[in-house]
Amino acid sequence: MATPERTYRADRSRRAILEAAAPEFAAHGFAGASLNRIIRASGLTKGGFYFHFPSKQALALAVLGDQYERWWARVLSEVGPLPRAVDRLFATPRVIARQIREGEGPGTLGKLIEELARDPDLRDEVCGSLRIAVEMTTAQFAEAQAEGDIRSDLDPALLAEVAVGGFAGMQTMTEQLADDDLERRVEALILVVRTATTSPQEGGP
Amino acid sequence: MATPERTYRADRSRRAILEAAAPEFAAHGFAGASLNRIIRASGLTKGGFYFHFPSKQALALAVLGDQYERWWARVLSEVGPLPRAVDRLFATPRVIARQIREGEGPGTLGKLIEELARDPDLRDEVCGSLRIAVEMTTAQFAEAQAEGDIRSDLDPALLAEVAVGGFAGMQTMTEQLADDDLERRVEALILVVRTATTSPQEGGP
Repeated sequence: MATPERTYRADRSRRAILEAAAPEFAAHGFAGASLNRIIRASGLTKGGFYFHFPSKQALALAVLGDQYERWWARVLSEVGPLPRAVDRLFATPRVIARQIREGEGPGTLGKLIEELARDPDLRDEVCGSLRIAVEMTTAQFAEAQAEGDIRSDLDPALLAEVAVGGFAGMQTMTEQLADDDLERRVEALILVVRTATTSPQEGGP
Repeated sequence: MATPERTYRADRSRRAILEAAAPEFAAHGFAGASLNRIIRASGLTKGGFYFHFPSKQALALAVLGDQYERWWARVLSEVGPLPRAVDRLFATPRVIARQIREGEGPGTLGKLIEELARDPDLRDEVCGSLRIAVEMTTAQFAEAQAEGDIRSDLDPALLAEVAVGGFAGMQTMTEQLADDDLERRVEALILVVRTATTSPQEGGP
């Protein structure tokens, strides 16, 4: 049985690998990432590495899961204190866009996500996070409707797909035009979605 | 000097190559596409092929340019007859989404575009089309504003980025969730942008 001391050391090694792997996958995607570079940067031996992760794929999925978890905790710590759902709703993409500019969060792993999603066996696991983002955003829209701050005649699930997909589109556009203007585009998206959802409803509020 | 007969034959060979190459690039992207399969499908010899296209890259760029040209002509033939700019504006993404479902147009070459855009030397040529899409959409929004059908206090260039980027995002989401629901998502995007742009303006219309 593992003693607490050994468990602590194992956790620390695992964390060292995840921290070394995240920037490597961010820079080179899945195919381009070098396990040797990751192992070297983690300070572990090859044996130590394979004790924690049987394969590059297992590592990539763990990095993704870890980034999502830590990143979402940070987003929540920023938007959570806002008292109204409508404010949390529109603050979220703003915070995420800023984190991407600062080189943080799963938004920086777009290339890795895309490569992994091409594998039909991994698609569900990788894209689960997209589904979760849509679900959480749906809940935020529904809450803002319940609080009377946005129109109640628009389907929250549909609004969530436009918002989450729109954010992904602003990223694609920014990458392809290579102009670093993601935050400006996200503000434009927020303006359009906010205007649509707070416009007067036909037949009264 | 080329006789008209020879020019005609050369045009026909060039066209045969472009038609053989488009589905290959659509299915496999740039790296995955096989020149041998394309040459075989075109019915030409290797020599005949290289007479028209010095490289796979030259061919890929020609396929893209050809697809854009023919596809835009088809879009225009459908939306052009609509009398008001606001109707042309919102009919355009609907027509494009339908064409993608039918396996037509540059929207089917997303993987190729993405791969080519990673090469800094090609980015401008490849993403020129994205810039053109934003410019044309900006003009449509401005025209609809001039005709008094949408709010005049929203920046048309900004709306165009949300609309074009949003469309790309609906594609990404549909690819990643692999549910073939692009047309439903594009309708949702149209609903949000239309509601935002036709909502009453603060301080009167």
